[in-house]
Amino acid sequence: MSGHDSNDNGRVDTPPEGGRRRNAAEEARTLVSAVTVGYLATVGDNGDPWCSLVVYGPDPAGDPVLLVSTMAEHGRNLANDPRASLAVNDPSAPGDPLDRPRITLAGRCVQPEGDAAEAALDAHVAAIPGARLYAGWDDFSVWVLEVERVRWVGGFARMDTVGPEEYRAAQPDPTQPIAAKAVEHLNKSHADGLLAIARELAGARGAVSAVCTGIDRYGIDLSCTGAGQSAAARVLFDTPLAQAGDVRPATVELAQRARALQAGG
Amino acid sequence: MSGHDSNDNGRVDTPPEGGRRRNAAEEARTLVSAVTVGYLATVGDNGDPWCSLVVYGPDPAGDPVLLVSTMAEHGRNLANDPRASLAVNDPSAPGDPLDRPRITLAGRCVQPEGDAAEAALDAHVAAIPGARLYAGWDDFSVWVLEVERVRWVGGFARMDTVGPEEYRAAQPDPTQPIAAKAVEHLNKSHADGLLAIARELAGARGAVSAVCTGIDRYGIDLSCTGAGQSAAARVLFDTPLAQAGDVRPATVELAQRARALQAGG
Repeated sequence: MSGHDSNDNGRVDTPPEGGRRRNAAEEARTLVSAVTVGYLATVGDNGDPWCSLVVYGPDPAGDPVLLVSTMAEHGRNLANDPRASLAVNDPSAPGDPLDRPRITLAGRCVQPEGDAAEAALDAHVAAIPGARLYAGWDDFSVWVLEVERVRWVGGFARMDTVGPEEYRAAQPDPTQPIAAKAVEHLNKSHADGLLAIARELAGARGAVSAVCTGIDRYGIDLSCTGAGQSAAARVLFDTPLAQAGDVRPATVELAQRARALQAGG
Repeated sequence: MSGHDSNDNGRVDTPPEGGRRRNAAEEARTLVSAVTVGYLATVGDNGDPWCSLVVYGPDPAGDPVLLVSTMAEHGRNLANDPRASLAVNDPSAPGDPLDRPRITLAGRCVQPEGDAAEAALDAHVAAIPGARLYAGWDDFSVWVLEVERVRWVGGFARMDTVGPEEYRAAQPDPTQPIAAKAVEHLNKSHADGLLAIARELAGARGAVSAVCTGIDRYGIDLSCTGAGQSAAARVLFDTPLAQAGDVRPATVELAQRARALQAGG
């Protein structure tokens, strides 16, 4: 169990910080990969700030690629001043928008040339398939926002600033695209397995029910209820998952391990 | 039938432009009233543009009222430079985000004092009830974005710019809060009434089915199908509706009028 202490029973003691989680750079890369709509701040006439909706696709380093018309105010702004920042959040996430993860990527927009322009366009079209239609129009240009600073807000009073090297070196969480469905499936069809995991692996001995509240490449989050009280718990996978397809075997493994401990105890 | 010609049968000839619709100022006021989340562009160090998520409530003139912490980067930015622009779109609207109505409100943020500060805070809290909790904290301040220019994009290649007087004089559409539910109800429970409206009032004589695609204070939009073809049509209410509660009697009136013509024809 990486990054974790086990006691003599093999039971995992959830560390005080709740177990390894995605860091701010990984959160930012994951959110940028999960969403295709953002809001771009550019510099208008007399330095006035201008905010407008854009769609984007991230390139392999996480720099957002835009396809911008000179008919758009932000297109004219970028041609005059390359500075920009892009705010992204996931409007499909539930709850208070101020309590949802969100990021701002700040930097300069450049127009790549030659092969770099082709690669950038491919990154945009991979996220926005319909964009292939406009890409050849005279008034549309490919711009890459070269990220110089990342501001991540994880929710109320959870925030961090990330530099460009750390941002580019981080990986988007490969489990994000299926995480919400996996959570739903576990809660609908595997309540017994979740309860065993809560009792045996998360140290929630007195739990009478457990609900999965999140899955990421490092582990699962649980809300455990017993004696009228609820508490959050986290259980890590043996190793960080490398792809979305690993979620199923990794959660099955947790449940099997928990049941073996249950039978043995 | 205001703004409309009727022929001798009382049948409405839908004018070529599709009947009176909300203008850009009304669209902007309606959208600003319907949404509470926007993205604010502010001026950072060295004039760098900064984009971040905010929540707001509009005051009676449509100026967005923000409650901003100096811990937030945009809070520090506003204290140094009051220029800002706020982009708003409705993420719950279906379809391609580039094809959805959206606006940018540009102007200057001011900190109201005395009674004006109380009124502004009330406008914010009316939209964001939880904000009352933070309003008294030392690091939170009320800011009003005094709108100087409005850019409205109605969808792909539909756009207009509105000045501050026109924006402030326009009214949010009072039917917007219930329009989506009313459309759903009409389509679910009143298909016959919609078909009669399409045939008798929208001139779609050959229609075999009609689906309502929108309701606003001025009328309803229909998609009429017949002979394997679909066409959009619009039918106006007798007078613009003054409140959400007028939608039901006004649509009943259209259906009754259509049925009377059907029986008479």
